[in-house]
Parts: sequence; C-alpha cells; structure tokens
Amino acid sequence: MNRQWLYAKQPVGKIGPDTFEWRETAIPQPRDGEVLVQTRMLSLDPANRAWMMGKTYRDALEPGQVMSGFTIGEVVDSKAPGLAKGDIVEGDWGWQDYASLPARRLTKRTTKAPLELLIGPLSVTGLTAYFGLLEVGRPKPGDTVLVSAAAGAVGSMVGQIAKLSGCRVIGTAGGPDKCVWLTRELGFDAAVDYKAGGVRRAIAEAAPNGIDVYFDNTGGPVLDIALFLMNLRGRVVCCGNVSQYDVEKPAPGPMTVPGLVVVKRLRLEGFIVTDFYDRRAEAEARLAQWIADGKIKAELDIFDGLERAPEALIGLFEGNNRGKRAVRV
Amino acid sequence: MNRQWLYAKQPVGKIGPDTFEWRETAIPQPRDGEVLVQTRMLSLDPANRAWMMGKTYRDALEPGQVMSGFTIGEVVDSKAPGLAKGDIVEGDWGWQDYASLPARRLTKRTTKAPLELLIGPLSVTGLTAYFGLLEVGRPKPGDTVLVSAAAGAVGSMVGQIAKLSGCRVIGTAGGPDKCVWLTRELGFDAAVDYKAGGVRRAIAEAAPNGIDVYFDNTGGPVLDIALFLMNLRGRVVCCGNVSQYDVEKPAPGPMTVPGLVVVKRLRLEGFIVTDFYDRRAEAEARLAQWIADGKIKAELDIFDGLERAPEALIGLFEGNNRGKRAVRV
Repeated sequence: MNRQWLYAKQPVGKIGPDTFEWRETAIPQPRDGEVLVQTRMLSLDPANRAWMMGKTYRDALEPGQVMSGFTIGEVVDSKAPGLAKGDIVEGDWGWQDYASLPARRLTKRTTKAPLELLIGPLSVTGLTAYFGLLEVGRPKPGDTVLVSAAAGAVGSMVGQIAKLSGCRVIGTAGGPDKCVWLTRELGFDAAVDYKAGGVRRAIAEAAPNGIDVYFDNTGGPVLDIALFLMNLRGRVVCCGNVSQYDVEKPAPGPMTVPGLVVVKRLRLEGFIVTDFYDRRAEAEARLAQWIADGKIKAELDIFDGLERAPEALIGLFEGNNRGKRAVRV
Repeated sequence: MNRQWLYAKQPVGKIGPDTFEWRETAIPQPRDGEVLVQTRMLSLDPANRAWMMGKTYRDALEPGQVMSGFTIGEVVDSKAPGLAKGDIVEGDWGWQDYASLPARRLTKRTTKAPLELLIGPLSVTGLTAYFGLLEVGRPKPGDTVLVSAAAGAVGSMVGQIAKLSGCRVIGTAGGPDKCVWLTRELGFDAAVDYKAGGVRRAIAEAAPNGIDVYFDNTGGPVLDIALFLMNLRGRVVCCGNVSQYDVEKPAPGPMTVPGLVVVKRLRLEGFIVTDFYDRRAEAEARLAQWIADGKIKAELDIFDGLERAPEALIGLFEGNNRGKRAVRV
C-alpha cells in the first residue's frame, strides 16, 4: 500500500491540517526507464509553503496532487539503466511511501553519510547556505554578517560557515532559547530575538561596524532593518521570504528600496541552490569534512512517521524548529 | 558682486520658489592653494532634491548654505599650482556666480567640447548612463532593456547606448510628445507614457520576451511593473528614485522584493557614477566619439541666467525637461 498526503486546497492565510488530505492507494509499478523508490526521508522547507502561492522557480502546487517536497529514498525496483535496487537517490516525489519515476528525475547519492545528513546538511539546505553565503554574499574576513532565521536549517549553517570565513556573525531567531543556542552552541557572536522589542536597536548594537553581508531568509522587518544598517557596497543574499509565506496579506515591500540601494551601492541578489549544482560535489565534500571535524554542527530536527508531515510543516511557520526539520518515513 | 541662491528651508512635499533665497554678496578672494572660479554652467539634477532629505552619499543640505549643484566654470584667479587663469574646471560649488575653493575640489577639463556638452553628456549624466548600463546592467546583444525617465538626461543616453549595444530598448516617459521623440528621434523601439492608463500592459506588450535589464531612474510604479516582467537572472540598475524625491509621503516599497528577486535570481544593484571615475577618460572619449559621429544625440535643455535656476529645478519634478537640463550663467 502507498500512503500519501495530498495537497488538498489552497490556504487563505496560515496553512493547517485541512490543507492536506490523507490517501491510501496502490504502489505504482515502474515502466521502462523508471524506478520504484521507497521514501526514507522527507524534507520540510519553507519553500513548500511558497509553492502553494503560485508559480515560482517551479510550477505552483495544484490541489489534488501529492504534496511536493524534497525526498531521499531507496530504489526497490529498477527498469532504468544506471540505477539498481538498494541505491540511495534523491528527488522531489513528495509526501508518499513510494513513487515510480524516470531515472532522469533522480540523483544517485554516493556520499557515505547518515540519511539524516543527506536530507539537509549535505543536500539542499547545506548547499543553499554554502553557495548563497560564499558565492552570492562573498564575505571577506572581518566582515559583519547578519543572517535571519538563524536557528533554521539554512541559517544555522550560514552562520557557522561565516564564522569559518573569519566574519563577525549575528543571527536573528524567535525566542530566547534559540538565541542562547546560537551563541553558546554554534559560535554566533550575537543573537537577537526578533519576537522581543527593540529589534532594530539590538541588531544595531550587535553590529557596531555596520553590516557587510545580510543573508535574508525572511524578508519582512529584518530586511528593512538590515537595509538601514548595511555598509557601503554591502550584499544582501536574497534566499527566502519566510515571514511572508504563511500570511493572508503580505506586508508592503522595503521602503528603502531602491533609495538606500543607490546611496549605499548595495547589491541585492537572489539565487536558487540548483544554479550552482555544477559545483555540488566540491561543496558537499567541504561540508562533510567540516561536519566530520566538528567545525560545523549539523542540528537535526527529525519527526518519525509520514503521518506527521503536516504537523512538521505547520510548525515551521510557528518557528518551533531548530536546525534541519525532516520526517523519517 | 556675487549673486547666489541659498537653500532656504527644507520643503514639505514639493519644492517651490520659497525653497530658495536670493542673495547678493561680495566676490570671495582666493587664499593660498585656492582658485577663484566664475560659474559658466550649472547642472540641474533630480539628486539635488534628494540631498534636501538627509544624508545620502554626501552630507544633507543645510538651510542657509549656498544651494549645491554640479558646476562648470572658468578660473579667473589662481593661487594654486596646476590651475591657471582661463582653465575650465568642474566641481560642486553650487548656485552662484563665483566661488573660491581649494584646487583639490576641482577637476580640470581638457576635453575640447562646448560647455553645454561638458556639463552633462560628457560628464556626470553621460557617465552615469555609460557606467550604469554597461558595468552594472551588463546588457548582451538581443537583450531587452527598459529605462525609466527615458526622456531625461540619463535615460535618453542609456537608451541610445543600449541600442548601440544591440538591445531592444523600451523607455517610459511622461506624455505623448516625449514618447514620440524617443522612438522617432532617439531610435527607441518602444516608448510608454507612464501618465496614461494601462502602463503595465503597455510595457508588457512592448517587451514580449520579458526584460533583461531595467535601468531604474524612478523607483515607484515602474519599478514594481519591471520586477514582474524581469527575466530569469535579470539585472536592475538602481540609479535613482525620482518618483519619490519630491513627495511628502513616499510610496511603499516594491511588494515583490525579496520574493521575485529570489524566484527569478534577480540582481538589484546601486551605484554612484564617481565609483567608476578611475575609468572616466576612456568613457568620456567613447561618448564624445559617439556624439561626434551622430550615433548618440545629446539633447540639451538650457535655461539662460542664474536667476532661473529654481524654476529649472522645480520643472524637473513636473517632468517638463527633455534631455540634459542646465543653466547657462
């Protein structure tokens, strides 16, 4: 039997349990050129919510389809050359136990690491942090780097890579526990609780020399604040807009765009991790080494059981995750 | 006698005649290391208005000071080595007949061209168009380039340089006369009257393949529209925000920042022309050649007499200029 979560209907405002619908159906059989994969890990990402809002870098989710999401699984039957039973593959076959799909839609993973690392720190989220910070943000030693949603899967890696790059690192996160974790456990120089008062002043005090690189996972108020504090020729890495995904009415855009962009010669630049996948092997090897050496802590936030996927995603927008959230299927 | 316009008081909303105050005073005498210059041309630029709002890439204007502005003049007395009576120099000594100032605050002009060209097309505005388009926007042949305030000093040059770069060029301007001028006289492929209705549809129709480079002189609604129409990896050259300089309450920022910046991997980048002045000679020579060859039309919009400077600047924000506006003193 193939258990699935369907995307049931477009949410108005926040997603909830009724955004999804449980279905049990037959296991699909692979055709020529296809393989049957059994899902092992399912990644929960803020982008999942953005896909509900319309076409992005991929087609919009359509009600009735299996809920999309980045996945890792094991080949259990293969009618495609190059993939064999037992291979570990990644793809985007969504919230279900099994899928049959063409080999070209799968990437074989050969890195020897636990699946919990392969689903995040050594895949989409780790690589997003790596390429976004180093290639788009281009920090120099001594720079001040601000990262929003710093306790999240991407942000926690960004901050640690920025520390390895010789930067002063400030993170924003929701609540004092996460902030303490960032500074005590992950080596951030400062952390600011965006749910507390005086956020602008707190960030300004944590960045006495201004901000050179802002890694923006959130948009919203932290972007506004960062733009005021950016130094001449500062770089804003536009990675996500999570403050605006799960709301009924998006906030207005940043008032200082384009004014301060001109005055301070800022660069705001967006990217998608797959833009850099020609250099994935090199990046993955570096990340794996840093993790093995204990230079980067890859925090995992794992839920057990496909049935918990909606709860895990809904919780992301309540900010109750720390590090990489995934479901073990 | 030295006639001057002072910056009298900070405007609330639109600037008007009472923003300035006429004064007649003695001609200042140069001290050691200084020269006395006689103003010949005075440049009127939207940036003059932005300087009234606060610190930008320069200090804010302070009520009571001589109104600032880019100037060209002739040395009439020199107590500084390297500058002699009769030399043509440029600087920012503002709205007055004479000024005594240190030689290091002046740049000697050696390009042989009429002063009307030296004040704009072969100086700040021409170089802004040149470096902003070519170095920040980086258009490729076949790209579609949109430029706002296209009938202005910078925009009219941007569009023509983009045509010389093999691009499809669309301009926005206020009113049908300017639009006809852009397409008939300057070779733009299309022009859209931003004061007419249906601006978004008109720009979309003029850009059937989307927009690769948007040269933004205005911010405001045209920036919003451009972001929706940008192609993957499009570049937004953040040059000015003229739609927001002369208003009491600035408009909200662009709603699609950072959302569409991420999804489309856009780059928004600000610049100030002087960032590129190490390459000024090369750029000025190319611009001069293009103008001499008739490949670029350098439209001039000259007012006669220092007394008309306020009227000339106020008119800029009513959109009644075409090409480079300056005052001949």
